[in-house]
Amino acid sequence: MCGAYALQGLKILDFTRVYSGPYCTMLLADLGADVIKVEAVGHGDDTRSFYPIKNGESGYFTYLNRSKRSITLNLKSEEGKRIALELIQWADVVVENFSAGTIKKLGLGYEEARKVNPKIVYASISGFGQSGPYSRKAAYDAVAQAMGGMTYLTGYPEGEPVKVGPAISDAATGVHTAVAILAALHYRARTGEGQYIDMAMMDTVFSMLENSVPIMTMLGENPQRIGNANPGSAPYNMYHTSDGSVFIATANDSLFTRLINVMGQPDLIQDPRFNSNPNRKLHEKEIDPIVEQWTLQHTTAEVEAMLDEVGVPVASAKSVAQLVDDPQLQHRNMLIEQEVPGVGVVKYPGNPLKLQLTPPDTSRRAPMLGEHTDEILKELLHYDEEQIQQLRTQKAI
Amino acid sequence: MCGAYALQGLKILDFTRVYSGPYCTMLLADLGADVIKVEAVGHGDDTRSFYPIKNGESGYFTYLNRSKRSITLNLKSEEGKRIALELIQWADVVVENFSAGTIKKLGLGYEEARKVNPKIVYASISGFGQSGPYSRKAAYDAVAQAMGGMTYLTGYPEGEPVKVGPAISDAATGVHTAVAILAALHYRARTGEGQYIDMAMMDTVFSMLENSVPIMTMLGENPQRIGNANPGSAPYNMYHTSDGSVFIATANDSLFTRLINVMGQPDLIQDPRFNSNPNRKLHEKEIDPIVEQWTLQHTTAEVEAMLDEVGVPVASAKSVAQLVDDPQLQHRNMLIEQEVPGVGVVKYPGNPLKLQLTPPDTSRRAPMLGEHTDEILKELLHYDEEQIQQLRTQKAI
Repeated sequence: MCGAYALQGLKILDFTRVYSGPYCTMLLADLGADVIKVEAVGHGDDTRSFYPIKNGESGYFTYLNRSKRSITLNLKSEEGKRIALELIQWADVVVENFSAGTIKKLGLGYEEARKVNPKIVYASISGFGQSGPYSRKAAYDAVAQAMGGMTYLTGYPEGEPVKVGPAISDAATGVHTAVAILAALHYRARTGEGQYIDMAMMDTVFSMLENSVPIMTMLGENPQRIGNANPGSAPYNMYHTSDGSVFIATANDSLFTRLINVMGQPDLIQDPRFNSNPNRKLHEKEIDPIVEQWTLQHTTAEVEAMLDEVGVPVASAKSVAQLVDDPQLQHRNMLIEQEVPGVGVVKYPGNPLKLQLTPPDTSRRAPMLGEHTDEILKELLHYDEEQIQQLRTQKAI
Repeated sequence: MCGAYALQGLKILDFTRVYSGPYCTMLLADLGADVIKVEAVGHGDDTRSFYPIKNGESGYFTYLNRSKRSITLNLKSEEGKRIALELIQWADVVVENFSAGTIKKLGLGYEEARKVNPKIVYASISGFGQSGPYSRKAAYDAVAQAMGGMTYLTGYPEGEPVKVGPAISDAATGVHTAVAILAALHYRARTGEGQYIDMAMMDTVFSMLENSVPIMTMLGENPQRIGNANPGSAPYNMYHTSDGSVFIATANDSLFTRLINVMGQPDLIQDPRFNSNPNRKLHEKEIDPIVEQWTLQHTTAEVEAMLDEVGVPVASAKSVAQLVDDPQLQHRNMLIEQEVPGVGVVKYPGNPLKLQLTPPDTSRRAPMLGEHTDEILKELLHYDEEQIQQLRTQKAI
């Protein structure tokens, strides 16, 4: 890192585990926030044993926890709890994603935190929020996707609902939480007041349903899943090619005309079934096979090249194997490399927050379990070697 | 609104259209930022004519543009451009999501903006970023989902890749952009320096692939789509019921034991095929039908109630028709109502940024096209009635 950090000086105490919270604090840590990750003594964040594992190290964990420091604390011990409260005094921000109510039971909830640090910004992430009829419901990402409406809307009309492959309700809630935290800090800078933030995965998913809710509430139509098609445009779908499939999207006459010119069938625009976008949508089952007849004669790469050339939206569903060498991701610094001790160099997604003057720093690898316990206790809380030894003997750290 | 706003005093000039940018500025406007939306004279934001439409008003537009003011400007006219530059002087933040390079050609890019306001924070959103091999590629949400890897990973193993139903690459890029803007403002508050932010939808999608990239880069395995299943746990899937389907997720012995107790088959844990999570995953094709035999004897609601009771993660894929009356969303203020002139009261998703002291304000409806043109010109830029009339005659506003 040679430049400045956007979030230099921001101190975050991070009790989060698994995905939503760690994604939130990774975004902020890459921008220079000092993130101290509190992990359970002995095993740490659950993701330390999540797939993929190589030589005992998890790529799940090491991807999502770069740029952070790790301290181990037994939060159920008096000493561990005392140190946590001392770190809350140190922090500007606390983030946690235990199941609703758990951190309160540990004596480290917002009410306890504000007693030792009245200006604290304290964010909780849970499946359904800290209160209400579902607040005690067990939540995994797939549960939040289903309960928030994303799963029902994903998949083919003739098939079953299907969840989004990656755990997007976790990632999306993580990044929404980052907005909430920075906004609360903006308020605190102006007024001196901290506050509590109560984020829920179901809320976030429901907030990302595009126009689905007004379709229901304005028109009384319950939106259905439609695969790769578009509710208002055609041809707009995934088509088979000689070696796979390709996604082509034409949403107006200009794009359709460019497509049929490339296909060598410019007269299709004269056909009364295909002479406007509404007519093409009405006759989607006739125009789609015509397009596919053409795509089947070419490879995916050929179709992409021909349509890119004339500005028709086109894409193939890239696999991760393709993406880890993608030239645009490389150009964008979205493929970064880090050393994992005992494993070697591993490639991860970079940080998508492309601030040009203060770019994210993705050079600092994820911490080993408790790697910074001594450093944090000594430098931030002024414990001496003897006290640290005693805490270790007591299994408090 | 009776309380305080988190982002009181923050001034945002918003050139964005359709979804990604408007979602970003909606999140910030609900928190009290003063967002001025610049729209094309005559037709405005494209989404003003997007589905769903009732009495000429679009629910797509009115959902995503609440809490903002609208000014119409012809950015291709000298006068319109001059007013835009005056508004850039007024603003703390500019956001735009034209295709890469377009706003520069209009003479309103970052270089021009910083000349009139050196401290400006200026964010661009595009499909692939402002430079690099794909930067001129046409981008729709479905293109970004496919190019970023989300589509390949979504769907059933025996079926085709399928895009996420709602346009999540738009929403996700919008919220990531909000983080970038607030972080840049944090830096500016400390140093006085503004900066440029160059966000890309492909980056955001690639950043949300969970553990997929390290699976490839650590193990050399190219991750595949697996429907509603889980790569490491079973039973963990969507199962048919007597009236639909239900998602059940057991990721450890404790949850499995609770499930089979409710099923009345507690001995299954003794079966060597099912006595550990790895064994159950290995024999997924045998345990899944056993679970489904049970779920088929009950309604979805019955299975949900029985498993909620014992804390086994369970969900049904809720449709929007169900969600608009959901008791938890109601409890969370995630179902808000607004008057749309000429339409009546419409229900929308609320704002998921649940700051408790300075909650989002979702009371202000989306503006009619150019509703605040005169007010903005008079109050912020001190134009008089005569000048405004002249601008209108010139079709500059």
